[in-house]
Amino acid sequence: DPNLKVFTLNSNKALAEEIAKVIGVELGKCSVSRFSDGEIQINIEESIRGCDVFIIQSTSAPVNEHIMELLIMIDALKRASAKTINLVIPYYGYARQDRKARAREPITAKLVANLLETAGATRVITLDLHAPQIQGFFDIPTDQLLGVPILAQYYKNKNYDGDIVVVSPDHGGVTRARKLAERLKAPIAIIDKRRPRPNVAEIMNIVGNIEGKVAILIDDIIDTAGTITLAANALVENGALEVLACCTHPVLSGPAIERIDNSKIKELVVTNTIALPEEKRIGKITELSVAPLLGEAIIRVHEEQSVSTLFD
Amino acid sequence: DPNLKVFTLNSNKALAEEIAKVIGVELGKCSVSRFSDGEIQINIEESIRGCDVFIIQSTSAPVNEHIMELLIMIDALKRASAKTINLVIPYYGYARQDRKARAREPITAKLVANLLETAGATRVITLDLHAPQIQGFFDIPTDQLLGVPILAQYYKNKNYDGDIVVVSPDHGGVTRARKLAERLKAPIAIIDKRRPRPNVAEIMNIVGNIEGKVAILIDDIIDTAGTITLAANALVENGALEVLACCTHPVLSGPAIERIDNSKIKELVVTNTIALPEEKRIGKITELSVAPLLGEAIIRVHEEQSVSTLFD
Ligand SMILES: Nc1ncnc2c1ncn2[C@@H]1O[C@H](COP(=O)(O)O)[C@@H](O)[C@H]1O
Ligand SMILES: Nc1ncnc2c1ncn2[C@@H]1O[C@H](COP(=O)(O)O)[C@@H](O)[C@H]1O
Repeated sequence: DPNLKVFTLNSNKALAEEIAKVIGVELGKCSVSRFSDGEIQINIEESIRGCDVFIIQSTSAPVNEHIMELLIMIDALKRASAKTINLVIPYYGYARQDRKARAREPITAKLVANLLETAGATRVITLDLHAPQIQGFFDIPTDQLLGVPILAQYYKNKNYDGDIVVVSPDHGGVTRARKLAERLKAPIAIIDKRRPRPNVAEIMNIVGNIEGKVAILIDDIIDTAGTITLAANALVENGALEVLACCTHPVLSGPAIERIDNSKIKELVVTNTIALPEEKRIGKITELSVAPLLGEAIIRVHEEQSVSTLFD
Repeated sequence: DPNLKVFTLNSNKALAEEIAKVIGVELGKCSVSRFSDGEIQINIEESIRGCDVFIIQSTSAPVNEHIMELLIMIDALKRASAKTINLVIPYYGYARQDRKARAREPITAKLVANLLETAGATRVITLDLHAPQIQGFFDIPTDQLLGVPILAQYYKNKNYDGDIVVVSPDHGGVTRARKLAERLKAPIAIIDKRRPRPNVAEIMNIVGNIEGKVAILIDDIIDTAGTITLAANALVENGALEVLACCTHPVLSGPAIERIDNSKIKELVVTNTIALPEEKRIGKITELSVAPLLGEAIIRVHEEQSVSTLFD
């Protein structure tokens, strides 16, 4: 269909190539570079007049560069008379800045939503927002797809020796853990962190039975990996047979890779919403692709079909 | 006045300190740092409720970081009930992307104006926009101050042996050159570049009399310094006694410093709208401060007085 155009910016070109293959299109011709002073220069090298345009860009690190690329691309497409401008944002950065936890904090997740709309976006497709409320920050149609079905399929294909238990590393992640557990027909457990007094180490209590079981920790984002590796240690100390971990978004900043490598986690399963640079591709990490899911979502949005059956 | 608050972000802290001194206030308490994954973290550490807040930030390199800092700061101030949010943007980045010179180009200077307003800015004070039309990109009050009076004062204080001529390096800069010339009671000349055929070197024609004179080249921005150093060579070859150069915004990216150092330019006078890192502070460069001008503008805006007498 000549009215469907898919462009990629710089955050995740490999994923974009894969999505284009799933859909059966070539990526739109476009160069995204920098002027000598670091300002972004975008050249769209084919007409997109009257087209449904999809831009694939995660707002992963360097997050501010990637957000500005996205905004400037939207501006260029709008001025070039695109019919619709659909953002495919596999990882939505700044999602943890989604409320005023302290006085005078910004709510950057909302700010970015406003900026994208101001630039001219007409729709957003994303995966595993840190909080589902972030969908409400947009006034344009927003579809949130989930990583859980992809992660669940991977674990189903393995046949683990022993009973499985799905573990949420904190109370905020219980809904997600339950979704994975249902698909694996397994029970759940929850790590219950408490700090008895300020400046005293946290106590890790485990709610639920994990003894002698294969424990699968699940989170949406693994950033510095502090939470997940401490949780893994607690599980082993409390008698888990082995500890696996998974997440949708491998942010993996700062000490993350070292911590994971040195931890009791046997395998970490992630998706490719965030491109992993070579130095983060350690043996323990397995990467699954969200390209089939996002490709299907793009086709359905373009054909004005419901995407809701992709949500679970 | 406790209702006047001046904050700085990371682009130009030295200038902000100077401005605060001119006004006679302390800079507002605020930390602007990065989370482990590179996301911006802003903590405003004093109440600003009901205040006129001024944020000092040039959108110089790294431009995308500096724009995002500014947007997030505006968001935080808005949510903390600032009465007015006044942006002091000594150098407005992306100003050269101010029109569609080719098909499907973005107009990033306009996009950024929209983003700043969406975030919640109520007023802008800036210096030497690349094109005065950019003022019209904002729907909020926008004051454009000029660097020419500061540059003129510097040259007036010197007593050059010989007649002065002010030279514009291209046709776009003639108005600016004339303003400087008027203040120095000097004539102007213009460098008239022509490319006879594609892929043939440009011919530099000089319109006006420069022979035996002290030529002062003036531009708004010096970026890679190609234009200005070629112009300087042409002036010397055509008999100028000596060549000086000045600009408001020393972007000085890529080969700029090397080119200036190796050029016929005897002295380059710039202002501190863009902070010069140590490695760019070569002997040929003299830096003048815009702090008195911006400080005065802030006081007048806060006291709801006219700033128009500051424009020339
Ligand atoms: N990029 C980030 N890295 C680490 N912490 C963050 C980041 N962005 C926001 N936060 C903080 O994380 C907290 C929210 O995380 P959560 O409780 O998981 O929703 C807030 O206190 C934020 O200040
Ligand atoms: N940061 C930049 N560095 C170099 N050239 C730029 C930059 N931003 C925009 N331009 C180009 O500069 C031209 C406008 O410059 P001017 O003719 O001086 O107004 C346009 O063709 C832009 O594509």
